[in-house]
Amino acid sequence: MQLVTIDDIRAAAARTRDDVLRTPLIPAAWAGKLWLKPENLQAIGAFKVRGAFNAIAQLDSQVRTRGVVAYSSGNHAQAVAYAAAQHGVSAHIVMPEETPGLKVDATRAYGADVVLCAAGQREAVAAEVVERTGAVLVPPFDHPDIIAGQGTAGLEIAEDLPDVEHVFIPVSGGGLASGVGTAVKALCPNATVYGVEPELAGDTAEGLRRGHRVDWSIADRNRTIADGLRSQPSDLTFAHLQRVLDHTVTVSEDQIRSAVRDLALRAHLVSEPSGAVALAGYRSVAPVGWAVAVVSGGNIEAALLREILAG
Amino acid sequence: MQLVTIDDIRAAAARTRDDVLRTPLIPAAWAGKLWLKPENLQAIGAFKVRGAFNAIAQLDSQVRTRGVVAYSSGNHAQAVAYAAAQHGVSAHIVMPEETPGLKVDATRAYGADVVLCAAGQREAVAAEVVERTGAVLVPPFDHPDIIAGQGTAGLEIAEDLPDVEHVFIPVSGGGLASGVGTAVKALCPNATVYGVEPELAGDTAEGLRRGHRVDWSIADRNRTIADGLRSQPSDLTFAHLQRVLDHTVTVSEDQIRSAVRDLALRAHLVSEPSGAVALAGYRSVAPVGWAVAVVSGGNIEAALLREILAG
Repeated sequence: MQLVTIDDIRAAAARTRDDVLRTPLIPAAWAGKLWLKPENLQAIGAFKVRGAFNAIAQLDSQVRTRGVVAYSSGNHAQAVAYAAAQHGVSAHIVMPEETPGLKVDATRAYGADVVLCAAGQREAVAAEVVERTGAVLVPPFDHPDIIAGQGTAGLEIAEDLPDVEHVFIPVSGGGLASGVGTAVKALCPNATVYGVEPELAGDTAEGLRRGHRVDWSIADRNRTIADGLRSQPSDLTFAHLQRVLDHTVTVSEDQIRSAVRDLALRAHLVSEPSGAVALAGYRSVAPVGWAVAVVSGGNIEAALLREILAG
Repeated sequence: MQLVTIDDIRAAAARTRDDVLRTPLIPAAWAGKLWLKPENLQAIGAFKVRGAFNAIAQLDSQVRTRGVVAYSSGNHAQAVAYAAAQHGVSAHIVMPEETPGLKVDATRAYGADVVLCAAGQREAVAAEVVERTGAVLVPPFDHPDIIAGQGTAGLEIAEDLPDVEHVFIPVSGGGLASGVGTAVKALCPNATVYGVEPELAGDTAEGLRRGHRVDWSIADRNRTIADGLRSQPSDLTFAHLQRVLDHTVTVSEDQIRSAVRDLALRAHLVSEPSGAVALAGYRSVAPVGWAVAVVSGGNIEAALLREILAG
């Protein structure tokens, strides 16, 4: 299996330079020798734009006229809709019928055609849209262009803090951790890379321990408040994770909530639970030496943020 | 009167480069052709570190051994305490007895000596500390080094967006608006610079209209929720504001609350009411062309943030 290389990530960075925010490292001395990488500040509120722009920028002109397809109820939907709009490409986004109206509206606001489908039918309906329109599927994580795009965040970490000793990255489908881990391992070979998951969706921690992918039921994974971390790696991302993660860390729901609260009140960053998991993992490990935690996204409902702020 | 120049600001930027976060411009397409300058991401949660570092970095070694003094119940206290600690200088911070315990604790956490005083006695007590210790006063805005330090945020705006057409800056004592306005007017002479105040603390808007400083009672100014915007310019900052502000804008309390809410949920930035006033001003003016609004600070109590998020 061909894995993404640092050259792929460098090419992705050059390709997306004008489209993606180069997020700074923000000091978080209140938490220790820690810097935060605030991907929640990207245009759609999550790192997902990095992969989406890298994939869409590479489409040839004939494919562009046919458009792109994505299936997602979360940040990937908005990232593809946004990146497609910026490139003048039409986007069809397949979302489950139970997706909150706010997210459907936000996706439509980027000019995307939203196709609602029954629960569990997303992939099948997306395939049908591909068949009907000739559009190209932009998967959420299972593609080298997506992994390389997400990896540009790791390239920036290595550029800004070449002596980084510990890097904490949330893991779900594994696109972000694969890409960032690849960049960090290539440029900062002495750094330790941690994949962080909720305890309630710890399939990757278990899989890496066993040496092969394991399947947790979606009912189990749906228990975590971190709704962006309920996916599981593909063969491609799992192979990357086996190579680039030194450790996995799992964190409790209380640790996640506490991290959301502290990011808001001490770092002045609004994070979604999935976006705060890396900070929770950093606190759980409490490493010696300079660390970076990736705050991967900030799309949280006002009611949930209020509840968490109440402590 | 000698006003701060772009060269002073450039020198301040060189002097504070290793101490101050270079904040990026964050796209806020949801609000129009707008970029946000997120100074709430600075180490103590506000732009005030820029001026504090610029002042403290210039102290000679003899003065350093005697320390610095500041009077403030807000972000300036923490900025001076933090900058002094980073430079190994002792800091005495004079705070009113009614200052919330959280802020006193945060200031002490930076190693500062906190001197509590009766309401209205801050300046007198600070003068007494200067007399007793030989330490140097670092004023919150009424000093060229402070103005030049705050101006580095404007230098960064001009570097990152040389074609900026409109810049919105909150005004209280006027240090930030004086410095940022000076930098923007020097480097982007075609840009329009707006000073933004709460309607309930609109002394600068009235003063500029009349052509001289006016005094609003502290009881009047205390009505606004924007507790960082209750000061009034000095002769020095007023002279800068007369030169660099093209317009003043005043905004209602509801507009301020709405801006805090949208910064949290759409830009994923936690702002204090004072920090959200520039966005409110931008919306009130609704200019054509590319604009920047400075999000000046993020230190808000959890209870108030929850209340505002409830809408």
